[in-house]
Amino acid sequence: MKEKLALMIPGPTPVPERVLKALSQHPIGHRTPEFQEIVKKTTQLLQWLHQTEGDVLTITGSGTAAMEAGIINTLKKGDKVICGENGKFGERWVKIAKAYGLNVEIIKSNWGEPLEPEKFRNILQADNEIRAVILTHSETSTGVINNLEAISKEVRKHEKAITIADCVTSLGACNVPMDEWGIDVLASGSQKGYMMPPGLSFVAMNQRAWKASERSDLPSFYLNLKSYKKTSDKNSNPFTPSVNLYFALEEALNMMKEEGLEKIFSRHNRHKEATQKAMEAIGLKLFAAPGYGSPSITAVEPKDIDADLIRKVVKENFDILLAGGQDHLKGKVFRIGHLGFVNDRDIITAIASIESALNQLGALKEPIGTGVATASKILFKENRV
Amino acid sequence: MKEKLALMIPGPTPVPERVLKALSQHPIGHRTPEFQEIVKKTTQLLQWLHQTEGDVLTITGSGTAAMEAGIINTLKKGDKVICGENGKFGERWVKIAKAYGLNVEIIKSNWGEPLEPEKFRNILQADNEIRAVILTHSETSTGVINNLEAISKEVRKHEKAITIADCVTSLGACNVPMDEWGIDVLASGSQKGYMMPPGLSFVAMNQRAWKASERSDLPSFYLNLKSYKKTSDKNSNPFTPSVNLYFALEEALNMMKEEGLEKIFSRHNRHKEATQKAMEAIGLKLFAAPGYGSPSITAVEPKDIDADLIRKVVKENFDILLAGGQDHLKGKVFRIGHLGFVNDRDIITAIASIESALNQLGALKEPIGTGVATASKILFKENRV
Repeated sequence: MKEKLALMIPGPTPVPERVLKALSQHPIGHRTPEFQEIVKKTTQLLQWLHQTEGDVLTITGSGTAAMEAGIINTLKKGDKVICGENGKFGERWVKIAKAYGLNVEIIKSNWGEPLEPEKFRNILQADNEIRAVILTHSETSTGVINNLEAISKEVRKHEKAITIADCVTSLGACNVPMDEWGIDVLASGSQKGYMMPPGLSFVAMNQRAWKASERSDLPSFYLNLKSYKKTSDKNSNPFTPSVNLYFALEEALNMMKEEGLEKIFSRHNRHKEATQKAMEAIGLKLFAAPGYGSPSITAVEPKDIDADLIRKVVKENFDILLAGGQDHLKGKVFRIGHLGFVNDRDIITAIASIESALNQLGALKEPIGTGVATASKILFKENRV
Repeated sequence: MKEKLALMIPGPTPVPERVLKALSQHPIGHRTPEFQEIVKKTTQLLQWLHQTEGDVLTITGSGTAAMEAGIINTLKKGDKVICGENGKFGERWVKIAKAYGLNVEIIKSNWGEPLEPEKFRNILQADNEIRAVILTHSETSTGVINNLEAISKEVRKHEKAITIADCVTSLGACNVPMDEWGIDVLASGSQKGYMMPPGLSFVAMNQRAWKASERSDLPSFYLNLKSYKKTSDKNSNPFTPSVNLYFALEEALNMMKEEGLEKIFSRHNRHKEATQKAMEAIGLKLFAAPGYGSPSITAVEPKDIDADLIRKVVKENFDILLAGGQDHLKGKVFRIGHLGFVNDRDIITAIASIESALNQLGALKEPIGTGVATASKILFKENRV
């Protein structure tokens, strides 16, 4: 029943009916006091979600637009920057930085392994000309969460460098206290923890980022954040914004506020634990190094069987869409998205379906039910906030 | 009753229930065969709407993003370009071109006056180093339609120049046969003739534009059209697209196809005639020079009374949102949007409301009903296709 397809991919994530309903209202004029009210309210809620007193600017565009905006508004051509690269989105940072003529030094880890904060520390200590450290928090392609807190704290000790972070699949799923961790530029996108359809993205900028923007000379117009800042201060937008997605944003942020940050983070943590422990219990290997599984997405590397075959059976029999592997991981991993509007039922269902599919394919090494039993224990054991 | 507010502004325009319903479906994965089908179908319909065999690429962003993409993908830093400027959006072209270090020559007309094709011809004939002629077709700020056909035909005689046109408020409202007129790059936006909410924009590129793109060296990533072309050929997108707006796009384009181009254009022409003749009949001055009124938007310049006062009364009493003047036209003109999902009832209603408001304000110089009578005659007189 393809009409009943459930999304368990790392974006778009499921969208609550309340949000879809808000989305489908008749548009209003974007230069009206009514719309200004929405901009004002969503901006305040975005600051709450980012745990920042800095600016959070809303762009009509994908997460990549927000990432690019972060770079082109704070750096100068030829600037030396460090990019962390341990997956597809780390690679994207490198591509963006190079497209604008930055002098990029790459700190790599193998896909599946986290970035090592010591490597950043060493390079930062050795070179006081570095202008930015650019990295991905939750690497969607591999399910690895990098230690953004440690790395951005290293950056803070440096004279000139700022931290630019892709928090596209971490924000709204796990704790990313922007001000406390000292993240200077933070990019995120609506189709992830926000529980919204894709189409809006967000760039948070603190005072250090704005200071860096004064010497920036990279060309921009649509993604010129000074324009967004100027209009945001008047509760408006520089260009026609995606009005209906703003309706959805307001409703989604209301829902997040009602749930509260602590509960949101504990829910994602519970779902991560249940998913990851269940996959291991049924004999599947997690792709992310131990201790570095993302709260948003779990990449699983089944041995002896094509990962896409598992996805196919899960989709055909149970109408659950899992994500495949990207680039060289194609067919080697499948990825379970567990971020945003996801409840315990979704988790237990996904695990039961994967187990059942493996069983049907003759590839389940443990008694059927092992995964569900494991997840079940975790889902009930954990003290819910 | 603010819940009953009707939009008669030049975007967002009213959105049909069918389109809102499509918009509010649960998102699907954007890397699925189901979504590829939507990309394929909408791309074909976009080519139909643009009357082109070239590419039409869909961007998650506003019309400005599409305009910028047109420039940065076809030109080289220092390139000599001509920008037509006779309103706010002409000015925007100049700003974008200058932001990227182009050598901009401006051909100006006063706001309200059309650009003169002869001026373009003269400069093009005198200088064979010009690389692009950049202009706005329907100038939303003034309600003037420029003679894009004549100007782009002049460009075609030039050895090196291409035409880059902002058709944001003309496409889908009046005939813009891209291939026949020889427009090389054409930008448009979803919240106008498309009858959709804002959030998607479109860049059409023909072979000459792609050829120009080979020598282009302006930096880009999110707006790099080569990425869009490469994925569009596989019915996909380079970055996560605004999935729900694609649902809306498909439905809106279906509606346009059902109505047919000829009927769409004749409807907009009828509404333009009715609106403009009615405004004149009640003694109001049209801001656009005679013969150059846009089929999408009519700017009206009432003498002896603040234009914003009229808008205020129309909004408060009749729940119709009219647009104000921009920049130095603030308070001097009001603008009636009549593009997209607009029927004869909307036109007669707007005219009746404006007449009534003026009467209430003691500023109506003709017997009340004159405007409605004038519009009525035009709406019934014209042979409907």
